[in-house]
Amino acid sequence: MEIRVGKQSLQFAEAPYIISSASIVGKKEGEGPLGSCFDVVGEDDKFGQNTWEEAESTLQKEAFTMAVGKAGLKPEDIRYLFSGDLLGQNIATSFGLMDCQVPLFGLYGACSTCGEALSLGAMCVAAGYAEYVVAMTSSHFASAEKQFRFPLEYANQRPLSATWTVTGSGAYVLGKQRSKARITGITTGKIVDYGVKDSMNMGAAMAPAAADTICQHFEDFARGANEYDRIITGDLGTVGQEILQDLCRQKGHDIAGLHEDCGIEIYDAEKQGTGAGGSGCGCSAVTMAGHYLKKVKSGKWKRILFVPTGALLSTVSFNEGKTVPGIAHAVVIEHA
Amino acid sequence: MEIRVGKQSLQFAEAPYIISSASIVGKKEGEGPLGSCFDVVGEDDKFGQNTWEEAESTLQKEAFTMAVGKAGLKPEDIRYLFSGDLLGQNIATSFGLMDCQVPLFGLYGACSTCGEALSLGAMCVAAGYAEYVVAMTSSHFASAEKQFRFPLEYANQRPLSATWTVTGSGAYVLGKQRSKARITGITTGKIVDYGVKDSMNMGAAMAPAAADTICQHFEDFARGANEYDRIITGDLGTVGQEILQDLCRQKGHDIAGLHEDCGIEIYDAEKQGTGAGGSGCGCSAVTMAGHYLKKVKSGKWKRILFVPTGALLSTVSFNEGKTVPGIAHAVVIEHA
Repeated sequence: MEIRVGKQSLQFAEAPYIISSASIVGKKEGEGPLGSCFDVVGEDDKFGQNTWEEAESTLQKEAFTMAVGKAGLKPEDIRYLFSGDLLGQNIATSFGLMDCQVPLFGLYGACSTCGEALSLGAMCVAAGYAEYVVAMTSSHFASAEKQFRFPLEYANQRPLSATWTVTGSGAYVLGKQRSKARITGITTGKIVDYGVKDSMNMGAAMAPAAADTICQHFEDFARGANEYDRIITGDLGTVGQEILQDLCRQKGHDIAGLHEDCGIEIYDAEKQGTGAGGSGCGCSAVTMAGHYLKKVKSGKWKRILFVPTGALLSTVSFNEGKTVPGIAHAVVIEHA
Repeated sequence: MEIRVGKQSLQFAEAPYIISSASIVGKKEGEGPLGSCFDVVGEDDKFGQNTWEEAESTLQKEAFTMAVGKAGLKPEDIRYLFSGDLLGQNIATSFGLMDCQVPLFGLYGACSTCGEALSLGAMCVAAGYAEYVVAMTSSHFASAEKQFRFPLEYANQRPLSATWTVTGSGAYVLGKQRSKARITGITTGKIVDYGVKDSMNMGAAMAPAAADTICQHFEDFARGANEYDRIITGDLGTVGQEILQDLCRQKGHDIAGLHEDCGIEIYDAEKQGTGAGGSGCGCSAVTMAGHYLKKVKSGKWKRILFVPTGALLSTVSFNEGKTVPGIAHAVVIEHA
């Protein structure tokens, strides 16, 4: 079997398994419709720390420990860690995973990082470079607001198109040891820029990248949308979902009946006041780990396409008048 | 041959080649002792752009284009890009490489990013995932000062232990096509924290990580320092160099006669007023691409260990009183 398929995809001859996963979330996520799915729901979003950044680091540390424990492994069994977050210079990752003492590949893919980490982790295991790796990521509402928007104390209003950064960390142990789900292929995204400049409408900024990766995936694997039980994007929210479905339709793929978005599922937008939906690296990471993966492992779904989406902006690029380009990395997860 | 060696290393059965490399630097780097080695020396550090961030993006764009051109390839021949930079949310990378339209794995390893990119790029080619990949990184003095230190207009004084961020981008095309240098192995670093809190003394913060990776490398490959023509760190500078050599000696390895540091070589510290030496992701990337790699390709050196070093801090982590942990990724480059 050919490993490289099409322009941007890989199909693994010996597909790595997702041996275990862990999801840790904050209070608001625990109160949402998926609240009961997560492994841990924090009572206090500071998670016993002094700063929001330390709280986010704690999320990563706990998610790592729990995922490794669930797999029946010890930290020293993990050969590589693939992780990143949204904060400048990835500090949630560095300070969160420092004590694990596992060789680290630090990643930055904005909210697509879960897809990037799972892709590189799967590539690594499939090539025989590691028996076990951990792919993970995190975000935290308060550290992200501080990084990208306004101080919490300012209590600013938000447009309805704005998303709500998920407080959470999701971690996955990948390896050759048999489990009920495996990563059979990946499609790695290019940066796609439709010229959107509104940082309060990231769904619109990311949807073209998601459409590009999804349609390229169908082409590379010579598959149609109906060969998937679900196509699950990361955090497009309600505004981005509509754009994504329109763009896919224009490219000849009707995904409307199959499409779900982690950002839409994780909150009850009306009751919880979360605007267009959840966002942040943690959004897709915890929703897949806590909710969707179980449906694949149980066999209810045979094959899904998981497509975390990222908006590549910083306050500096925004203030300098730049656009918000998007990127999306797709991972095929199949029941095994 | 076993691919996995020891705890943290890989030895490639079919070692990928470094087919071409490109180095683009700013005016000050062009005036330094290695000035004549670089492919392009800019006359104006803004590189024709309006902002320092755009200037850094331009460096990446040009380095990518030049490396791909030197390899006799077109951008569409490159299957994956591995790149990152120092700016919050990797904006130099995102805006610099957006137009290449190559699937991108965004990385963050602080100034160790060149080692991380070469490692992942080599893993990717060796596994047959790509015919050609590009591994690259950049930094820019002015965008880094703005990000990490003081506005240029403030004209602050610096302690002698401070380093000077290199303006430059280095890019490498890796592939299976024969050339005169190849990556035969890698040792991936863990985060090492010795509790240094002085962001103006990053050499001291990074030296323990470099020592850890280098000594682990010797153990994993069962080799001694004398089996290398040179051991070349990224940007420890004069302060870090001394600490590194001491720490290695304590662990039973005398590297003093073999050790060089890109940060020390790139400037004439006394004449150019660059303190302890050069730093930034671009420092090791351009010094290897423009200077050291030629010695390997010519056969003057048969085997070197290239160890880019990173200091994992942000202004937020520094202001919150956190330490400056380090990380270092080692790449074995051999004459072929």
